[in-house]
Amino acid sequence: MPPRVRVFAPASVSNVGPGFDVLGFALERPGDVVEAEAADEPGVRIVEVAGDGGELSTDPDRNVAGVAARSALSALRGIGAAAPDAGVRLRVHKRMPLASGLGSSAASSVAGALAVNELFGRPLERRALLDHALAGEAVASGSAHADNVAPSLFGGFVLIRTYDPIDVIDLPVPEGLRVAVVHPHCRVETSKARALLHGHPFTIEQAVANLGNLAALVVGLHRKDLDLVGRSIEDRMVEPLRAPLIPGFAAVKAAARRAGALGCSISGSGPSVFALADGDETAARAAAAMVDAFRDAAGLDAESYVGPIDGAGARRIDEP
Amino acid sequence: MPPRVRVFAPASVSNVGPGFDVLGFALERPGDVVEAEAADEPGVRIVEVAGDGGELSTDPDRNVAGVAARSALSALRGIGAAAPDAGVRLRVHKRMPLASGLGSSAASSVAGALAVNELFGRPLERRALLDHALAGEAVASGSAHADNVAPSLFGGFVLIRTYDPIDVIDLPVPEGLRVAVVHPHCRVETSKARALLHGHPFTIEQAVANLGNLAALVVGLHRKDLDLVGRSIEDRMVEPLRAPLIPGFAAVKAAARRAGALGCSISGSGPSVFALADGDETAARAAAAMVDAFRDAAGLDAESYVGPIDGAGARRIDEP
Repeated sequence: MPPRVRVFAPASVSNVGPGFDVLGFALERPGDVVEAEAADEPGVRIVEVAGDGGELSTDPDRNVAGVAARSALSALRGIGAAAPDAGVRLRVHKRMPLASGLGSSAASSVAGALAVNELFGRPLERRALLDHALAGEAVASGSAHADNVAPSLFGGFVLIRTYDPIDVIDLPVPEGLRVAVVHPHCRVETSKARALLHGHPFTIEQAVANLGNLAALVVGLHRKDLDLVGRSIEDRMVEPLRAPLIPGFAAVKAAARRAGALGCSISGSGPSVFALADGDETAARAAAAMVDAFRDAAGLDAESYVGPIDGAGARRIDEP
Repeated sequence: MPPRVRVFAPASVSNVGPGFDVLGFALERPGDVVEAEAADEPGVRIVEVAGDGGELSTDPDRNVAGVAARSALSALRGIGAAAPDAGVRLRVHKRMPLASGLGSSAASSVAGALAVNELFGRPLERRALLDHALAGEAVASGSAHADNVAPSLFGGFVLIRTYDPIDVIDLPVPEGLRVAVVHPHCRVETSKARALLHGHPFTIEQAVANLGNLAALVVGLHRKDLDLVGRSIEDRMVEPLRAPLIPGFAAVKAAARRAGALGCSISGSGPSVFALADGDETAARAAAAMVDAFRDAAGLDAESYVGPIDGAGARRIDEP
């Protein structure tokens, strides 16, 4: 058992286009870093939270990384891989914005669960960490949504077929696919964004539009047909309800399209916006255009991330 | 130009599981046969309709095969492939039940359009026939739904991404996949079945369930993973509303599952029910069990069709 481990869990884009609650993918950056070390006191303690602007609790029951770590530790005790009085100290380094629509709580949850498993010599399979990470995520969002957690944990483009029982399916990622994500400096609380949908009456026509586009998006990923992937980023259900929560969204989306993006929609519950592109240059151009549009249309500063979809998922980063 | 042609267009299953209005596949049988021959009188006439129990009109404006044939003939005139005064006589042989949920009107529409195109030496590409077949189908259902027409025309498993403009995507068909379709002797009018959905308020949770399952179904087809295809035949939106229109449906579905079917749902707007299976034997067993269940649970006679998904689509059948 190593005395200390350091893990990274990537940010992720969920609610991808027509795939509300079922489709997400991982980003190469940003992401969260969690360190775990063995401790004499039994149970999980959080000894440091950094990069959160003082917003997050160090109470392991109220911090998603702590909840996920406790859940994982309890499982390790259950299979005899950790002693009944085993103790873990966590350091949580937020390296990404909170409430940004980039799966911040999912990344922390995944990192918390992974760190504990790594500290004890990796007794649990990666698949088994999903439940523990979801336990953390549930604290943040009120219920366990897996479309950020699963991509952050496994990497890649991930489909959640159903939650009962959870059925996670990894999708192929076409080689040239690039992502531009822009995070404007404003906030959309996930709970508020979800409340908009709860009990909202959707028509069969809206559902049919999303069903057709989601199925086509999945075909596009399998065929490596980036144009098909792009034109399937079409959401008639959720985006129309949530777009008004994001100042300048229409202008940002139009700017991404003009810059050559294949498709563009809200990342998670916003305010971040993602665009897909068929190469690094177009992705960079789209990101710049979206940042400009947030400033010009809404007076908002924004930062951007450009890169491929992360294929590795959460991982230890202190090993050679 | 041959003096006469004879074409076959297959029946089809639409609204496949979670894929309402977007997903359909073709059956090897049953299907409709349409004959077209050159005539002196300009325009399209229907000189015979057989196998319809006297229910269908021979007025080409009120018979879907006639409407589709007229639409195709008009296009042929437009490109100079048919003379302005060209005339066509049609014979429409219904070889499948009407209002059965098996795409009867789509098969006739496709056959009508194809027959005219074949009669004039095939000037139009198959893709171009879609619009003409849809013109026929629109007469039957009030609007142009392509999830029966496209499979009947092209064969295979077909996705309609969107209708505006129409974007038809053919999906891979795993080799061992077999279909059992059972048609009970009762009727569900498409218009009545559609009216149930119109304005019905669907929840986000229902949509999410269908989105996840539809995407997984598409993955299963690409991966040739029949189990995944089967467990994705799960419809939380439309089946619960329409099942009560089909006497004995719950018992029939349970019987299909018990007989080893991978999945089971309503075909089109019913009353036919389809099941997917991983081979001929299981499909035959499922079909027999479903027929029995219709009789035992609802006192209905039923006939069944068992076979692979048809890969060829509508075709000329009078050539060597």
